[in-house]
Amino acid sequence: MILLVAVTGRDCSQLIARLQALLPEIDVQFWSECTDYEAVEFVLAWNAPADLWPKLVNLKAVSSFGAGVDSIDLTKIAAHIPVVRIVDDNLANDMAEYVLGHVLAHKLRLKEYYLKQSAGTWKPKRAYSHQHVGILGYGELGKASAKRLLANGFQVSAWSNSEKHDVEVSTYYSQQGLDDMLGQIDYLVCLLPLNQHTQGIINKSLLGKLQSHAVLINVARGKHVVDEDLLEALNSEQLRGATLDVFSEEPLPQAHPYWSHQKVTLTPHCAAISDLESVSLQIAGNAKRLTEGKELINQVDRTKGY
Amino acid sequence: MILLVAVTGRDCSQLIARLQALLPEIDVQFWSECTDYEAVEFVLAWNAPADLWPKLVNLKAVSSFGAGVDSIDLTKIAAHIPVVRIVDDNLANDMAEYVLGHVLAHKLRLKEYYLKQSAGTWKPKRAYSHQHVGILGYGELGKASAKRLLANGFQVSAWSNSEKHDVEVSTYYSQQGLDDMLGQIDYLVCLLPLNQHTQGIINKSLLGKLQSHAVLINVARGKHVVDEDLLEALNSEQLRGATLDVFSEEPLPQAHPYWSHQKVTLTPHCAAISDLESVSLQIAGNAKRLTEGKELINQVDRTKGY
Repeated sequence: MILLVAVTGRDCSQLIARLQALLPEIDVQFWSECTDYEAVEFVLAWNAPADLWPKLVNLKAVSSFGAGVDSIDLTKIAAHIPVVRIVDDNLANDMAEYVLGHVLAHKLRLKEYYLKQSAGTWKPKRAYSHQHVGILGYGELGKASAKRLLANGFQVSAWSNSEKHDVEVSTYYSQQGLDDMLGQIDYLVCLLPLNQHTQGIINKSLLGKLQSHAVLINVARGKHVVDEDLLEALNSEQLRGATLDVFSEEPLPQAHPYWSHQKVTLTPHCAAISDLESVSLQIAGNAKRLTEGKELINQVDRTKGY
Repeated sequence: MILLVAVTGRDCSQLIARLQALLPEIDVQFWSECTDYEAVEFVLAWNAPADLWPKLVNLKAVSSFGAGVDSIDLTKIAAHIPVVRIVDDNLANDMAEYVLGHVLAHKLRLKEYYLKQSAGTWKPKRAYSHQHVGILGYGELGKASAKRLLANGFQVSAWSNSEKHDVEVSTYYSQQGLDDMLGQIDYLVCLLPLNQHTQGIINKSLLGKLQSHAVLINVARGKHVVDEDLLEALNSEQLRGATLDVFSEEPLPQAHPYWSHQKVTLTPHCAAISDLESVSLQIAGNAKRLTEGKELINQVDRTKGY
């Protein structure tokens, strides 16, 4: 059996070495150096080459290399083949800390003061009193972020695609629920999975329903946002600011207006960086389960995309 | 009886109007418009003119207009006269939020990313893993900040001038205790009162005992810091960064090197801005107690200065 690492756009040598050490009885190979496609039973995938999938005639399982599966073209994988993803407590903790840190940065006017420091301007202002955070997407990362915000005195609402209940968080679902939530919140945090229903969800219509002092924090995927609509909302004072960690194209092209926009805080997809060790352990665990005929953990519901 | 508002450097009209409304039986006057110095029994003071004090022959009590009493020359006030200060839960909460926000800003590399955004540089880095915060000064503000940091997974140590005990916080006192704490911590937060023992405490010797990845956050008084020593520590890579909210001279003079220093995050004394209503209620409460012959609350121990 071969475990094929079909991860593009990064150096995989450390990852392959670690997986091989954890799985001495499995042959771990890099996709472009594969010696026998028919022996591949398990694929670790991230933007894998499209022509790879038809060659894997004995494929038994696929693991995404991240929390999302939007980097995998699920139409190329037969419906009976389980697809799993990374669920990492460290990632959830890092994400919650990033979300809290950037909500506080807006509340405490950090970027405003950075700009004033550059300009040599002394102008004390009280921090914003806004306390209500709305989260789009209420899975592991959304729940971890909500918990951290609640512990810091914030009021939290969350919207997801199905009805959920929670004691401390006001939960919403459906289009009407989304509209109800948007009008009340001061900060909007996007933690949705990317799929056909959520692509472009942060558009002119959604942004128009927010209060004008609201701030957007996108830590999910760049394609959740219609960039022109966001820029228009920022430029027309319809939105106070935005923190963006993810972009439709990464690295963000040099000419993009986000780079120099005074209301945009830009970070380079660093909100939650996978820890090689923890991710390797999880992938190896599922590969072992496959060889032992056990059910894989963290399987994705392919109709929902997460 | 006259309550004299001897606060310089700001417009006091709203404050006086609010105090007068709360204290209809007391005459609230501004120091430069005082009609009868002998009728003054209670003074609200902040950098009061030095020649004012000898005129107040019937003075019975003094209130500082802040949490500290370093704006009052205590040598001008007879030892039997009680001096009180502002203790404001809102202030403590605002301070704790500022401290947490700026600790997270350093942990998440916010200023680093602001500078990279300005330069158009995409370079993701993992957040720092540092978790140990040392607090200088363990009064109301120090305790509120410690509590907030603990709730967010930080390890907290605190140093104060007398022995204190705490279940969750490692407490230190004495010079040896200070030295022990400094070598272990990742963030140093100054919340000390300013007095003859603490002026210039953050000097070359203290900074030299910190780890080189450590960060200073000064939210107490500018005079706690020897500016040349801090600049030297930042320039010689002995310290990773500093967030400064207070300065020896405020507003900070335009020519000061802090304004343009890449490792300095400068905010204009805004960490905890007194709320007029809450402060007025507290001052009025003590003025009423004075007229009723009751003991005043939040009295300062003049030998300690807080």
